[in-house]
Amino acid sequence: MARKAGTGSLLPLELDGDSASPLFQRLYRQLRQAVLEGRLKPGARLPATRVLADELGLSRNTVLAAYDQLASEGFLELRHRSGVFVAEDLPIARQDPQPAPPQPELGIRARDAASAGPVGADRRGGPRWPSCFATGVPDVSQFPFDLWTRLLARSWRRPAASLPIGGDPGGHPALRAAIASYIGEARGIACHPDHVLVVSGIRQAVDLACRLLLDPGDQVWMENPGYPGIRAVLAANACEVVGVPIDEEGLDVAMGRKVAGHARLVCVAPSHQFPLGVALSLQRRLMLLDWAREAGAWILEDDYDSEYRYAGRPLAALKSLDKDNRVIYVGTLSKLLFPSLRLGYLVAPPQLADAFRNLRTRLDDQPSMVAQPALAELFRSGHLAAHVRRMRQVYAARQRAFLDAADTHLKGLVAFRAEESGLHLVGRIGRRLGGRNDKALARTAAREGIQLAAVSDYDLFGDGPQGLMFGYAAAPEHLVAPALRRLKEIWT
Amino acid sequence: MARKAGTGSLLPLELDGDSASPLFQRLYRQLRQAVLEGRLKPGARLPATRVLADELGLSRNTVLAAYDQLASEGFLELRHRSGVFVAEDLPIARQDPQPAPPQPELGIRARDAASAGPVGADRRGGPRWPSCFATGVPDVSQFPFDLWTRLLARSWRRPAASLPIGGDPGGHPALRAAIASYIGEARGIACHPDHVLVVSGIRQAVDLACRLLLDPGDQVWMENPGYPGIRAVLAANACEVVGVPIDEEGLDVAMGRKVAGHARLVCVAPSHQFPLGVALSLQRRLMLLDWAREAGAWILEDDYDSEYRYAGRPLAALKSLDKDNRVIYVGTLSKLLFPSLRLGYLVAPPQLADAFRNLRTRLDDQPSMVAQPALAELFRSGHLAAHVRRMRQVYAARQRAFLDAADTHLKGLVAFRAEESGLHLVGRIGRRLGGRNDKALARTAAREGIQLAAVSDYDLFGDGPQGLMFGYAAAPEHLVAPALRRLKEIWT
Repeated sequence: MARKAGTGSLLPLELDGDSASPLFQRLYRQLRQAVLEGRLKPGARLPATRVLADELGLSRNTVLAAYDQLASEGFLELRHRSGVFVAEDLPIARQDPQPAPPQPELGIRARDAASAGPVGADRRGGPRWPSCFATGVPDVSQFPFDLWTRLLARSWRRPAASLPIGGDPGGHPALRAAIASYIGEARGIACHPDHVLVVSGIRQAVDLACRLLLDPGDQVWMENPGYPGIRAVLAANACEVVGVPIDEEGLDVAMGRKVAGHARLVCVAPSHQFPLGVALSLQRRLMLLDWAREAGAWILEDDYDSEYRYAGRPLAALKSLDKDNRVIYVGTLSKLLFPSLRLGYLVAPPQLADAFRNLRTRLDDQPSMVAQPALAELFRSGHLAAHVRRMRQVYAARQRAFLDAADTHLKGLVAFRAEESGLHLVGRIGRRLGGRNDKALARTAAREGIQLAAVSDYDLFGDGPQGLMFGYAAAPEHLVAPALRRLKEIWT
Repeated sequence: MARKAGTGSLLPLELDGDSASPLFQRLYRQLRQAVLEGRLKPGARLPATRVLADELGLSRNTVLAAYDQLASEGFLELRHRSGVFVAEDLPIARQDPQPAPPQPELGIRARDAASAGPVGADRRGGPRWPSCFATGVPDVSQFPFDLWTRLLARSWRRPAASLPIGGDPGGHPALRAAIASYIGEARGIACHPDHVLVVSGIRQAVDLACRLLLDPGDQVWMENPGYPGIRAVLAANACEVVGVPIDEEGLDVAMGRKVAGHARLVCVAPSHQFPLGVALSLQRRLMLLDWAREAGAWILEDDYDSEYRYAGRPLAALKSLDKDNRVIYVGTLSKLLFPSLRLGYLVAPPQLADAFRNLRTRLDDQPSMVAQPALAELFRSGHLAAHVRRMRQVYAARQRAFLDAADTHLKGLVAFRAEESGLHLVGRIGRRLGGRNDKALARTAAREGIQLAAVSDYDLFGDGPQGLMFGYAAAPEHLVAPALRRLKEIWT
């Protein structure tokens, strides 16, 4: 099955070499090689997926998969509505003209480590500056593991007959009840435990929503900049991702309406936008709900960081305003407890609750029951609330300490302001670093082993707002000042 | 957005009523209502998805989703290569002409309880005959929960810093190493721990394989009859499912080659076919591998029941013969330990290992870490092997006791023969029940609270081999004889 094409005058591709690999992988390797050998130059525009698919006689999904993998490894940049380009900034090509055999996962993991959002992979810091300043990582050393261990042991020593069998596709009933009661109190959401679905996390929730509610090619609004984990899932479901800009009131609903008024789904983090941290204003919330009702669209509310709020009154969840049952509410437990717990919840609008549960039952059944009863008890006993209250004080103090240290060491270089919630701060690049790009600064820091995420890395077009993200929640206190001092040295 | 059509002269459909629901759900409700009200008669043929999609101005996926949901609830039957029909046998329509408001999940869960394969949902028996004779359920009462509790507690009391953070998208390294060593010894598979991916179960494995390797519309061979959980995932990925018949040597490879020689993937359980229990002969294994190499197709080996073997030498896994790296090997731990553990593993061919891990990282990250270290220790310490050895003896004794009781109570009604492996027996319907259909017999039993699965329920065309499945592994010993006696009474 030889497939050959001129790639719109770009380069010759020859896909019939190794028929043991899937087509997307052969295409991926060919394109990767072309980039590494300089046949495809940084900044060069690639053919649209449809064009290349036609030329090579492949399906568009095959081309998409290859582009997607190359993009997730940093070789390509997918700029919405403008095309696919070879990345401008390719350290591999410069540092390693004769690279080792392709190890795709290293690319992805290195990128994740650098951007260190909650997108899987290695979240630990380098050897010299452990956990300085990875984004979205809670301080797990403070978690009451003794208590956790006792609860785990209590639930499994002599389990009720039904526990090891499982059988409730929505998740452990006691946990669903605890979650419903918790979000009722904490987030103003009235919901029945039957409408709660225990999921592994936000990405599984988005995946289920796409598979249930969307057809390939349907438009989805995504915050821009925004969480790349959501983008990856939308791409895997062949949605058309429409980046909607963020301003000081959050998602620009009027703009979304203008550019994609017939979108089917909106993914939004109203409490604490990622990565910029802004909260969606009440007026915007109402505009968004109005539009969703008119358009018959769904809103997926990612309430990932709402628990850690240090000042001010928490805004009620968007879901609490949802009179028309358009909002699918998603929360995570992995930040309240620890990231490797991998449990969260989806609250479906009542009319979709059965369909969500059915779909999950057909595709994969519930997540493991091993942690669910202990987790229910952690909620019920009030210990989880006590842990969150305590961590709120710890993180608030760490934010203050970080701001003090930054004022001492990074004055004029990076400007911060206090935030009322979240686990990281976004620093604006100051005049004394004027003209330096956030990605370049983050790269310099990474060479020193200090993880900083660049805000522009979260932009769909790669050229959005600039800034550097400092996760302060898990940063060891004695390392903050030395690490900031070191940053000053290497940046100036 | 009013959409109206004559449905190929079948009935008028009106989809503009409730714009708050997704389109597929509105279509689903309309069709369901038409069946319940008798406007669509049992056995009637529905329009092909493409036709109905065109008529209604919907996407084909929307129609597929509605058909799929109706089929999973038992309203429709999707007969491969012949079309979509209203089910012949509709208890709801007969018993409940004015049904309660639609509760889609009840349909699915009732069906799962009746067919009681390992497809999620309620696997417990009725109140009078608990766990008599649900299929695929191990006896969890025999599991060493004390030991399990100690291992859980040991791994979480003072966890290494990396454990609560997680970060290895392939799964806990110690568990991957334990699995690689276990399948090396037990199944003759040489693999590196880096090629092992911890997954939630067979369905997640199939889903990942489809999303990585297939395009929508690609053909996939599936055993017929076969495990409906796989069929559901293939359908959700818009694959064309090609049912390949099973004979006394297992999958009929020559037939598969004839009807779908260009398929991209084969899902097969070579050790112990579900539901028929036959093992794939060595000659067929080699034929299958030959074909896969020639066609550039992938084989997904579902080795779900290989541990419980009571006599004879276990056949080595198909994967152990896989010289050309075409086989993706999948095993489950949920049967070795307990179903609600929801952990299994996928062993990727080396050239796909990175791609599988990347895809999983992008879509959902690893499953929860909570159970993984304890599980690794259960392997490492030899306790798991000891548990399996002990359960092998328990289940072998139960099979003998079941066969004795069946010989006493069901002689002439249902014929059994001893099986060398597995957790259930397939009974052939005997002369004294001649002419009675397996589904009808299972329904009569279900009314009495005794769960039996009908083999023909696992057939893609609904009209395959007849038989009744008796799970004996978890049946309480004192209930077996009374339950069989009761079956004799109600059947004769």
